Amino acid sequence: MIRFDLISAVPELLHSPINHSIVKIAREKNLAEVECHDLRTFSEDKHRKVDDYPYGGGAGMVLTAQPIFSCIDFLKQQRLYDEVIFMTPDAPTFTQQDANELSLKENIIILCGHYKGVDQRVRDQLVTKEFSLGDFVLSGGELPALAVLDATVRLIPGVLGDAESALSDSFMDDLLDAPVYTRPADFKGFKVPDVLTSGNHKKVDEWRLQQSEDKTSRLRPDLYKKYLNKH
Amino acid sequence: MIRFDLISAVPELLHSPINHSIVKIAREKNLAEVECHDLRTFSEDKHRKVDDYPYGGGAGMVLTAQPIFSCIDFLKQQRLYDEVIFMTPDAPTFTQQDANELSLKENIIILCGHYKGVDQRVRDQLVTKEFSLGDFVLSGGELPALAVLDATVRLIPGVLGDAESALSDSFMDDLLDAPVYTRPADFKGFKVPDVLTSGNHKKVDEWRLQQSEDKTSRLRPDLYKKYLNKH
Repeated sequence: MIRFDLISAVPELLHSPINHSIVKIAREKNLAEVECHDLRTFSEDKHRKVDDYPYGGGAGMVLTAQPIFSCIDFLKQQRLYDEVIFMTPDAPTFTQQDANELSLKENIIILCGHYKGVDQRVRDQLVTKEFSLGDFVLSGGELPALAVLDATVRLIPGVLGDAESALSDSFMDDLLDAPVYTRPADFKGFKVPDVLTSGNHKKVDEWRLQQSEDKTSRLRPDLYKKYLNKH
Repeated sequence: MIRFDLISAVPELLHSPINHSIVKIAREKNLAEVECHDLRTFSEDKHRKVDDYPYGGGAGMVLTAQPIFSCIDFLKQQRLYDEVIFMTPDAPTFTQQDANELSLKENIIILCGHYKGVDQRVRDQLVTKEFSLGDFVLSGGELPALAVLDATVRLIPGVLGDAESALSDSFMDDLLDAPVYTRPADFKGFKVPDVLTSGNHKKVDEWRLQQSEDKTSRLRPDLYKKYLNKH
């Protein structure tokens, strides 16, 4: 059983994704546990404030150290954590390899940034791993935390109905997926490629590999180079 | 006013992020409109099915063409759309530049994939732009769609309280943000760098640029190269 503790200043934002889809399934199968913690409840400020102006001036608010230190201290008194992850654009980019590694852990804290960022002392003293979701800026780390949660949880054996489904995903072998089609064979005159309805599994596999290679070399030359180096 | 129509087979997943945070603010200020559409309500199947087995075999289910064609037809009868975006791992990666471009549009459809993918005929006939969130696989396109929505909406003038906040973000100038600190100056013995409390704005700016350059060259050599080429 893997356990995730998500810490956020806007925990309400996390609710519907955690209570639907793959994360819900993993929780119902007792393969994952997810708890959300409201930073405000850990604030010692009389107005439950969790942010303040940045030293040195500039726009945006900064999450203060105290509520985060208190929340993480509280959690660490209850169990050992493998990682304290902070989601922030100024960090290495999260990849499928990271999801694979996280799926083998037991207890993970994910701290969601919000506003302009978090007091650097939190990052220096408490955080063990930082991830960015990509080269774009969001209003908070909540969606990135949910993405890390989803990508990780679906890799835990037994969560997906069909284990093969995760293994044949894009990125598992440095190739993008081949196009997929389902019934009807003719939809408004647009037809499924003949090979897919031929019943010839060898030809289907060859077609899919060819399509994957073509698509990857066209859309993601960087990935394709990695793939060629391995083959 | 920008309008987003999100199409999903699990629209419940979208609710809490849309009703909190920056997207809520944009909607309350009448700067953005967001509608979620349940693919099942457009299914002509008597059991409201929206997926089927892939032609050619293999694991995972594929979203069928009919409900998606019907839903997008229905929306296009009501207004002109600038883009029909499909979120999928086998596509170019979404960046801040894409968010900038989308923030200038009026009407945008975002189709969320789910399960193994969507019938390729939908992508060939209806989709005008495809984005991946990054090199990892999620159980659906809902979180990626929400990320695109958040990244785009916060760039619309008037959405953020302080316009400068978006301009000083990571990626706006190919540099990652400098560390930020807020009160107290001494927390459990961990101190704020002197320069930030010096009141010397020129020195603060120099320190921040130096920190940004150091961090970018260390964590993201690819971005740093882009930055150096421009300066």
